[in-house]
Amino acid sequence: MSGWEKYIRKVEPYTPGEQPNLAGMIKLNTNECPYPPTPRVKKALEQLTERSEELRLYPDFAAKPLVESLAAYYKLEPEQVFVGVGSDDVLSVAFQTFFNSEKPILFPDITYSFYDVWAEMYRIPYQRIALDEEFRICREDYDRENGGIVIANPNAPTSIAEGTDFIEDILHNNPDSVVIVDEAYIDFGAVSALPLIKKYDNLLVVQTFSKSRAMAGMRIGYAMGNKTLIKAMNHVKYSVNSYTMNAPSILCGVCAVEDDAYFKDCCQKVIATREWTRKELAALGFTCLDSSANFLFASHQTIPAESIFKLLREKNIFVRYFKKPRIDNYLRITIGTDSHMKILMNALSQIVGNR
Amino acid sequence: MSGWEKYIRKVEPYTPGEQPNLAGMIKLNTNECPYPPTPRVKKALEQLTERSEELRLYPDFAAKPLVESLAAYYKLEPEQVFVGVGSDDVLSVAFQTFFNSEKPILFPDITYSFYDVWAEMYRIPYQRIALDEEFRICREDYDRENGGIVIANPNAPTSIAEGTDFIEDILHNNPDSVVIVDEAYIDFGAVSALPLIKKYDNLLVVQTFSKSRAMAGMRIGYAMGNKTLIKAMNHVKYSVNSYTMNAPSILCGVCAVEDDAYFKDCCQKVIATREWTRKELAALGFTCLDSSANFLFASHQTIPAESIFKLLREKNIFVRYFKKPRIDNYLRITIGTDSHMKILMNALSQIVGNR
Repeated sequence: MSGWEKYIRKVEPYTPGEQPNLAGMIKLNTNECPYPPTPRVKKALEQLTERSEELRLYPDFAAKPLVESLAAYYKLEPEQVFVGVGSDDVLSVAFQTFFNSEKPILFPDITYSFYDVWAEMYRIPYQRIALDEEFRICREDYDRENGGIVIANPNAPTSIAEGTDFIEDILHNNPDSVVIVDEAYIDFGAVSALPLIKKYDNLLVVQTFSKSRAMAGMRIGYAMGNKTLIKAMNHVKYSVNSYTMNAPSILCGVCAVEDDAYFKDCCQKVIATREWTRKELAALGFTCLDSSANFLFASHQTIPAESIFKLLREKNIFVRYFKKPRIDNYLRITIGTDSHMKILMNALSQIVGNR
Repeated sequence: MSGWEKYIRKVEPYTPGEQPNLAGMIKLNTNECPYPPTPRVKKALEQLTERSEELRLYPDFAAKPLVESLAAYYKLEPEQVFVGVGSDDVLSVAFQTFFNSEKPILFPDITYSFYDVWAEMYRIPYQRIALDEEFRICREDYDRENGGIVIANPNAPTSIAEGTDFIEDILHNNPDSVVIVDEAYIDFGAVSALPLIKKYDNLLVVQTFSKSRAMAGMRIGYAMGNKTLIKAMNHVKYSVNSYTMNAPSILCGVCAVEDDAYFKDCCQKVIATREWTRKELAALGFTCLDSSANFLFASHQTIPAESIFKLLREKNIFVRYFKKPRIDNYLRITIGTDSHMKILMNALSQIVGNR
């Protein structure tokens, strides 16, 4: 071992979901939107093509057009909006910025699996708090000393949303902690905590373009909160990388925000397909947790989730399986188009029937 | 002050160069390429427009097409190439990954002003080592105990390049330190240290698409080194943000790498314009350091740099001025097109003549 190898930072990296790209596959494993982005994104790319010589110039380092368009959409000041390279970038900056206490930050034991990766990366002490037997977050568990709180709402991979009162209780009882509400899946039926930022200066709401806005390939996430929070995040960002958002993400992001009708229509279609899928799954003997997200977390009454996962793969249908305590008999199934879900149901009824 | 404010990370952020966007302005302040990216980038954007529905999907988290195309271009294995959101992202990850010793990392006192920002951000001890009176790096100064070394070559804002022997001496004398050679400006006449990665496993070479490849707006940087270095950087990257490179950067990046003739032609044009500019500046009483970069670092024999900077601004010509010890009588002038430089020369001869 060379001398320099002693000083390499050792980390246990997050393993992203597999991104297979096979002809004819049905991809229901990473919670992408089954519909394309708004046609305005195509228009934006056409504009960008015409002005491709401008790519020689640095983008706006504050991503001002995108920040302003999000601020206008959510009726905020631009100084209340932070944008980053996907909500992972935004959350990572938020962890670095706000979680510098010696007290542990708190988040559920079953939740987005990146939270403990960031805590490890930034050497933030943390406690994972067990969800109850029905996979619900117990509000009272967060009434303990802490250096910050992170709640995914709806939670993933459980799909369950908590109400605004629940979030408000946590904010109210923890005035000395920044509370991050990760709303990656908020647009599929849950209620955003955003209005609470007027009342609670310790609330940071994080959302993404990767799910409901159908732009995972563009990598855009954002945070909203009071100006002190956002300014502090920008200071950290400018200490790492001045220009994080490239020209295509700024331009396409703005165009996506502007087409609200398309956005809402997509969300409604996903919700309708989810409800259809849930009923069909029930008829095949699956139990789904109560989903407010663009995925279902489903368990079969007799057949182990891992077997179903493997059998679906053989049929070129990819869902997500987590070989982890408590959830190793569940499948996380992204809601696809109606025709994707019909193919899935046919495959599942064969699997269930063939046993 | 709220309780949570105590735990906000306080940092002194890097201040990016101003990015004015005025009609008719001559922008020579952030070392962008004056020529557009290769026409293949336009083709790539056309393809992307046609396939814009695919933006609903996450990009390849390893940015495999781009990594493979860079590996092929530089005759390396893909496992020897790391890509990031501009060389700032790449350097930031490298600092986090390799500089975890208690000993200070070393870099020149006059160099890219982000190095100490990252060191502060990641709490890495550091020593700034003075350039000599001619703004050269003294090789012997780096023969001291250290936790890593960072050399920009050509250095910025001085524009001066050191030879491969110089870099090899530093590598040879510091086998227990990772040595980062930041080659943002390497393609304008200097010689890359890249061939040395076969011989020195502690060498990391960092380059960017923002200068010679005319794609600052796309945010692409990369590092090359032995597989152990690159693997360690990827582990850190996957602990922060799995998907950093969006679909447009991957696709356009590949197309840019493939058009080598265009790339080399751009570099040659910039070099020719630089040499013309240097002579013209000399005729006006300016002294330029010996540049191997796409900018000149120039000082006038009688008129203070700050005055010239301000007078140029009044004429809508933007160059870079650093109000810092030792270099506060220099201007950093990006090489533009021939016609940009003629306009600059006319303005400068007025300024010099009007005194």
